[in-house]
Amino acid sequence: MKIVVLKFGGTSVGNIDRIKKVAKIIASYKRKKLNVIVVSSAMSGTTNDLIRKTEELSNNFDSAEYDVLLSSGEQAACALIAGRLKHLGLKARSWMSWQLPIITEGPYSASRISKINKTKILTFMKTGGIPIITGFQGINLDSRITTLGRGGTDASAIMLAKFFNADACDIYTDVDGVYTTDPRNHSKAKKISKISYDEMLEMASLGAKVMQPTSVQDAKLNNINFSVKSSFEKKRGTLITGTKKIFSNQIITGITSTKNDAKVTIVGVKDKPGVAAAVFKPLSLNQINVDMVVQNISLNGKETDLTFTIKSEDLKKTEKIIKKNKRISFRKFSYDNNVSKVSIVGVGMITTPGITYRMFQALASKKINIMVISTSEIKISVLISNKQIKKAVAALHKEFKLD
Amino acid sequence: MKIVVLKFGGTSVGNIDRIKKVAKIIASYKRKKLNVIVVSSAMSGTTNDLIRKTEELSNNFDSAEYDVLLSSGEQAACALIAGRLKHLGLKARSWMSWQLPIITEGPYSASRISKINKTKILTFMKTGGIPIITGFQGINLDSRITTLGRGGTDASAIMLAKFFNADACDIYTDVDGVYTTDPRNHSKAKKISKISYDEMLEMASLGAKVMQPTSVQDAKLNNINFSVKSSFEKKRGTLITGTKKIFSNQIITGITSTKNDAKVTIVGVKDKPGVAAAVFKPLSLNQINVDMVVQNISLNGKETDLTFTIKSEDLKKTEKIIKKNKRISFRKFSYDNNVSKVSIVGVGMITTPGITYRMFQALASKKINIMVISTSEIKISVLISNKQIKKAVAALHKEFKLD
Repeated sequence: MKIVVLKFGGTSVGNIDRIKKVAKIIASYKRKKLNVIVVSSAMSGTTNDLIRKTEELSNNFDSAEYDVLLSSGEQAACALIAGRLKHLGLKARSWMSWQLPIITEGPYSASRISKINKTKILTFMKTGGIPIITGFQGINLDSRITTLGRGGTDASAIMLAKFFNADACDIYTDVDGVYTTDPRNHSKAKKISKISYDEMLEMASLGAKVMQPTSVQDAKLNNINFSVKSSFEKKRGTLITGTKKIFSNQIITGITSTKNDAKVTIVGVKDKPGVAAAVFKPLSLNQINVDMVVQNISLNGKETDLTFTIKSEDLKKTEKIIKKNKRISFRKFSYDNNVSKVSIVGVGMITTPGITYRMFQALASKKINIMVISTSEIKISVLISNKQIKKAVAALHKEFKLD
Repeated sequence: MKIVVLKFGGTSVGNIDRIKKVAKIIASYKRKKLNVIVVSSAMSGTTNDLIRKTEELSNNFDSAEYDVLLSSGEQAACALIAGRLKHLGLKARSWMSWQLPIITEGPYSASRISKINKTKILTFMKTGGIPIITGFQGINLDSRITTLGRGGTDASAIMLAKFFNADACDIYTDVDGVYTTDPRNHSKAKKISKISYDEMLEMASLGAKVMQPTSVQDAKLNNINFSVKSSFEKKRGTLITGTKKIFSNQIITGITSTKNDAKVTIVGVKDKPGVAAAVFKPLSLNQINVDMVVQNISLNGKETDLTFTIKSEDLKKTEKIIKKNKRISFRKFSYDNNVSKVSIVGVGMITTPGITYRMFQALASKKINIMVISTSEIKISVLISNKQIKKAVAALHKEFKLD
């Protein structure tokens, strides 16, 4: 039995016309004699509306009840899709996660799927039925509803693909794929036809609009190929798959850039073991996400300069925390609130020497000054003035033949 | 364990402020050391909004999916109530019907509760927990969600009271009780403190605003006393109970009146066995509800006049059906589209002679002409011109000392 998992996000089922469109898409797979398992999010807007209600009732709304509340949105969406498919003469029905069941573990609002009982769905599909399963949720071992957190329906889709050993997994959303760089910032951006899990993960700032990194990671761990497609237009999407399945001369797959970053330098920190931990632990406890970190070589062996980047909005809080931190001593706290990170991502760079040089050369030729550099196996990031982002992305897009 | 079932209707949980009020009401029972089982409807508006969506998707939306869709509304409401109670420091949790389970039988959208598994709820209550149970729904033997039809949460409340052998059942709604007559039509209407099931059933036109007749019938069959109260104002409500518990000198409990009735007379029908059935069967098959029926005495033994009342909106359809009915022959189809039914209801009339006479006399003294009369053990109804309703209700309200 050839099985395809289809996932529809909140905007894809955002109103009645879109639900009709979704039903048409599902029917088109059925005409190709494929067995489809559909998993859907709540209609866009519904979840936010429900969250607002909890905020009006409590500043600390119970997380178990929060999950019961939110999960009702997917229940409604699935019933509407199934009802529309039946109207079109297809055999379909909605399945709540407790009806399979889909078992989760972990805390409310951030649980993970640990097991999916396939029996009832397989029986239903054998009779030609199209199951429409509630995304974003499951039940725990106490038979209580839990939700999977942000991007949870993607996680549902990947886990359904895993447990049903699906031949394909198509993620329908409001974008039509992953691009070489943000099309809104660079007119020459192109859709990528195939991209590896790792590249997708490294391109978080581009990729996150398409899929949450945890779901990409789940797909990678379980070796599940999935495609990202638009539910609005009939276009080829982007296939996200393992490195081995990608044959391409392209060294660099995409260029990403961030906005609203700030660079912080703690000048003249006493250089002793554990100083980095002493700086970063209180930041982490305050939910401040530190991105690039560079420690300059200590000239006299006693002092060092510690540079890192954070989101601009966290700058004031960071300054306060660093200045009242008694476990470190330093001479000066300096910052630059007008910086951006530009990255090139591509598995090709593992086997291709000279990429770093080419990147720096391309930026230098446009008189773009590099403040901080950080590298991983498949990604090189540089920090530059945020006035130069557009110019930098264009130069790199051209240099690595993505135009 | 003293158990009270509390039911909250859609308007009682219609917005965030009302949900806060409901949580306060529940907390007040808990302070009296009572074990409460709460059952709630969906927030008012939610259900209609969902129904509209089904209509936009199909002119014949699948009833099983319709039930899945609608039941999501109660799920959300119960989570919000439970979350608010936890915010107030009380132990509470929402219970979906599948979590108990509440078992139903019969068709989708019109099922009936056949069994409630009490184990989990009793365990939860023994630890001081307040269960908030989804009204209006259950699951059938296929583990699919079913709904109970209009007024379904009342049915849930009555059945919970039955299965848990509750000591009381308080129905919170947007009216504060049952009145001697409609307060909007007669300023001297008074709230009834106690009324019997049968009276409540006979006062359907008044009572239905408060509770669906099927739930009253369920309460009667299972001998469950319940009170109707307002969730907006702290006032004594109306207790609905068995006749034996009512000690009162009041012979008549209430006066009801209808609007938009039509009287139809089929003049000169051939009088032979089965003629009434031949007239009414096709009406019933067309969902036309026939109310009062009078057959005049046949003078010559060959012909008779058949008079009955229907809703005005059904008049045109009725005329068409009667005129093309080949199983009957008659001389003339006549009708009056400006009639109303006024009824007096009271168990007291069983043991008190002369009520009929007093009713007719009171109407005659106001020059109100009676067109049709129909009586049951605890109700007498007369058909009059609809211009005279207000005058008739006032005269009867005074005659039977309800002022």
